[in-house]
Amino acid sequence: MQFAQPVSNGRKPAPIVYIRMNTNNFSTVPHLTTALSGPLQQLESHFLKHQPHIEAWFRNEWLRSPAPVYASVDLRNAGFKLAPVDTNLFPAGFNNLNPAFIPLCIQALQSAIEHNCPTAVRVLLVAESHTRNTFYLESVVTLRDLLSKAGFEVRIGTLLEQDGAMEVKTSSGKPLLLEPLTRTGDRVGITDFDPCLILLNNDLSSGRPAVLENIEQRIAPPLNSGWSNRLKSEHFKHYRQVAKEFAELVEIDPWLIDPLFRNCGEINFMKREGEECLVRNTDILLRTIRQKYQQYDIDKKPFVVVKADAGTYGMAVMTAHDADEVRELNRKQRTRMSAGKGGQDVSKVIIQEGVYTFETWGEEEAVAEPVVYMIDHFVVGGFYRVHTGRGPNENLNAPGMHFEPLAFAEPLNNPDTSQEPDANPNRFYAYGVIARLALLAAAREIITP
Amino acid sequence: MQFAQPVSNGRKPAPIVYIRMNTNNFSTVPHLTTALSGPLQQLESHFLKHQPHIEAWFRNEWLRSPAPVYASVDLRNAGFKLAPVDTNLFPAGFNNLNPAFIPLCIQALQSAIEHNCPTAVRVLLVAESHTRNTFYLESVVTLRDLLSKAGFEVRIGTLLEQDGAMEVKTSSGKPLLLEPLTRTGDRVGITDFDPCLILLNNDLSSGRPAVLENIEQRIAPPLNSGWSNRLKSEHFKHYRQVAKEFAELVEIDPWLIDPLFRNCGEINFMKREGEECLVRNTDILLRTIRQKYQQYDIDKKPFVVVKADAGTYGMAVMTAHDADEVRELNRKQRTRMSAGKGGQDVSKVIIQEGVYTFETWGEEEAVAEPVVYMIDHFVVGGFYRVHTGRGPNENLNAPGMHFEPLAFAEPLNNPDTSQEPDANPNRFYAYGVIARLALLAAAREIITP
Repeated sequence: MQFAQPVSNGRKPAPIVYIRMNTNNFSTVPHLTTALSGPLQQLESHFLKHQPHIEAWFRNEWLRSPAPVYASVDLRNAGFKLAPVDTNLFPAGFNNLNPAFIPLCIQALQSAIEHNCPTAVRVLLVAESHTRNTFYLESVVTLRDLLSKAGFEVRIGTLLEQDGAMEVKTSSGKPLLLEPLTRTGDRVGITDFDPCLILLNNDLSSGRPAVLENIEQRIAPPLNSGWSNRLKSEHFKHYRQVAKEFAELVEIDPWLIDPLFRNCGEINFMKREGEECLVRNTDILLRTIRQKYQQYDIDKKPFVVVKADAGTYGMAVMTAHDADEVRELNRKQRTRMSAGKGGQDVSKVIIQEGVYTFETWGEEEAVAEPVVYMIDHFVVGGFYRVHTGRGPNENLNAPGMHFEPLAFAEPLNNPDTSQEPDANPNRFYAYGVIARLALLAAAREIITP
Repeated sequence: MQFAQPVSNGRKPAPIVYIRMNTNNFSTVPHLTTALSGPLQQLESHFLKHQPHIEAWFRNEWLRSPAPVYASVDLRNAGFKLAPVDTNLFPAGFNNLNPAFIPLCIQALQSAIEHNCPTAVRVLLVAESHTRNTFYLESVVTLRDLLSKAGFEVRIGTLLEQDGAMEVKTSSGKPLLLEPLTRTGDRVGITDFDPCLILLNNDLSSGRPAVLENIEQRIAPPLNSGWSNRLKSEHFKHYRQVAKEFAELVEIDPWLIDPLFRNCGEINFMKREGEECLVRNTDILLRTIRQKYQQYDIDKKPFVVVKADAGTYGMAVMTAHDADEVRELNRKQRTRMSAGKGGQDVSKVIIQEGVYTFETWGEEEAVAEPVVYMIDHFVVGGFYRVHTGRGPNENLNAPGMHFEPLAFAEPLNNPDTSQEPDANPNRFYAYGVIARLALLAAAREIITP
């Protein structure tokens, strides 16, 4: 347990081991460009050593808190720390996954729907309403095809109020039929299609739609997992507990996998209400992070990320390295922080420890952030958001931001103990472990909101 | 429903469609060298068209008869007929699967063991006793590594009576430790290893081992699925029923997927007892096959395969195109038919419709026979037994026989309706459907033996 010291004993961690950089695999996997990867390598060693217990622990947890039907988790890999920063229960981006892992997705979807509705033949996929985002539509078509290959009849419903079906085109030019929902008594469907299962791919930022309330059919994930009911701070409160339990199991400091956070009560950026609370908490959080950096000899400037607590789509997000930056917001910044997805007012924020991303890709050393996809409790793939124009302390998922998706070349469930702990299969396994911890936090959150 | 005529209506099936031979994919997939592939192509079309109902039907059946933990099924593809000829509940040959599908195997093993023993950490794999078959040992090591990657601690037990552990080498030179079983009260294990689950990879041809009787832990597959309890004729009786139900679902003649069979009472080849019954049934069976061949305009000579009813390893197997061939066995042939695996006496035989294999591979047109692997109810891969020295009506799994394994290049759960029904993904999907029908027959057989 070299680096696995509890905070309280005050000892310095083991000296940091510099990892060899492999310039041969630029094409498949970003590499860590930090000298601070020592603790991470040890994290990976711990995971490998404890793998049977990690997996048994997860199996046991899924019995108590069944995994949501699907999810994607944004990770940040600082070399010295590997942590989730966002958990999406209505994942898009299925089109960014490696086609080699389609069979894995199909098999996991079969498991997932077996758990939710064993006799299902027909699945109604309820999509987001932003019909002009052709990349999103590409993801919907990919998901539809996966469901179809898994042996279901699938049609795609929209919450948009429209008279008839609407044909739209995906970014690759594929046609997609969006059909309005119909309600007959306690059942929801679309014309001539009475589904067994409603698969939500709409995050309900605009509220819980009446047409889906009190229906007979199963909705997965459930309505209360939409952003109209969720708060990021609730999720990360569950995550903190999950990380604590897991850290005990594998004997590490939970901070290595858990982003610290604080939150305030109501905030109104335009009226500058709640500002003092935000400044104070930002300051406390930055000081706490600084202590951890000192403990681990990390020569980096701590930063925090302030985000809408019920937010998504990377809207209403800012970073700060100093509490003053939060105090001195100009009008434009305050306006930007006030409006979330779909124009929803932002009245609550979460102040989260910023986690550097030290993975870079290609000769330009573009910043890369892993996104991990899960179906049921299985890790089925993922991709890197690769962005040349951003720094290691910036949010890579922001509106209008263009990233290059780089599909994971390897699966995340195939660790190889005969290789080094930081070899690709083992790094991917570690990603899968951390992503599943976030998934477990979401599972507990949905059960006990 | 062109060719899907019930036997009774007497109409000729649709004219046979000649399929285009693709000489470009020699390296990955054998091709059908028969002009008789018309009905099969239509079979594949039916499967594609009915896919959601096929999958829903399977899901429902697995709820009633849970799938065995794993199995492999030998198929024969005659172009006009695609049928299972043997179902192995203790599969070897995991080393012949495509490494690209390791993630699929890992995920399916996780599902399988979750169903059998959700809290399992330790799995005891009980191997066959033939320690000199280094290819078999290679399969055991592959299976062990899959279990280990799936997150279990695995050790390998042997039923051989020996004092301590025995290190053996696989065909590729990997070391493998075989450890004797220990019994403590109602628990079985090996020294310092108390498993949660006993995974049987020994077909119990030599009988049910006392050490495994009445133990507290779960054994998968259960003891009664060993060859000391099973009869092929019982399996194919269940399969006949499964094929009948499935054929109704997809509206085909069940004969297209079901090998006819008959059996007799006790037989003693050496004493020539029961010979008349064997001759009579062979004759009846050959006549029935001939009628079906006439119905479908198949210009081939019918044949039957006579095998030990409780047999395995391709021992005690013979083919006959005429009842006289069964009558006029010489002493050597009778001796060969008398002894099954491990020297067990053969006293019961099954007379099964021979299914031609018209898949060939390479320029030499070597005969190829698909073997499909399943873990839980998931189809995880397979390979072709490729044999240059055998004919399309011969058994490709016989003792001392050397076949070249050719791993399936594509998964079996990824059909593609945008391609022709006989395109590779769709042919593989059809293989997976037929193999799962045999798996379902085995599931029913284990529940109601």
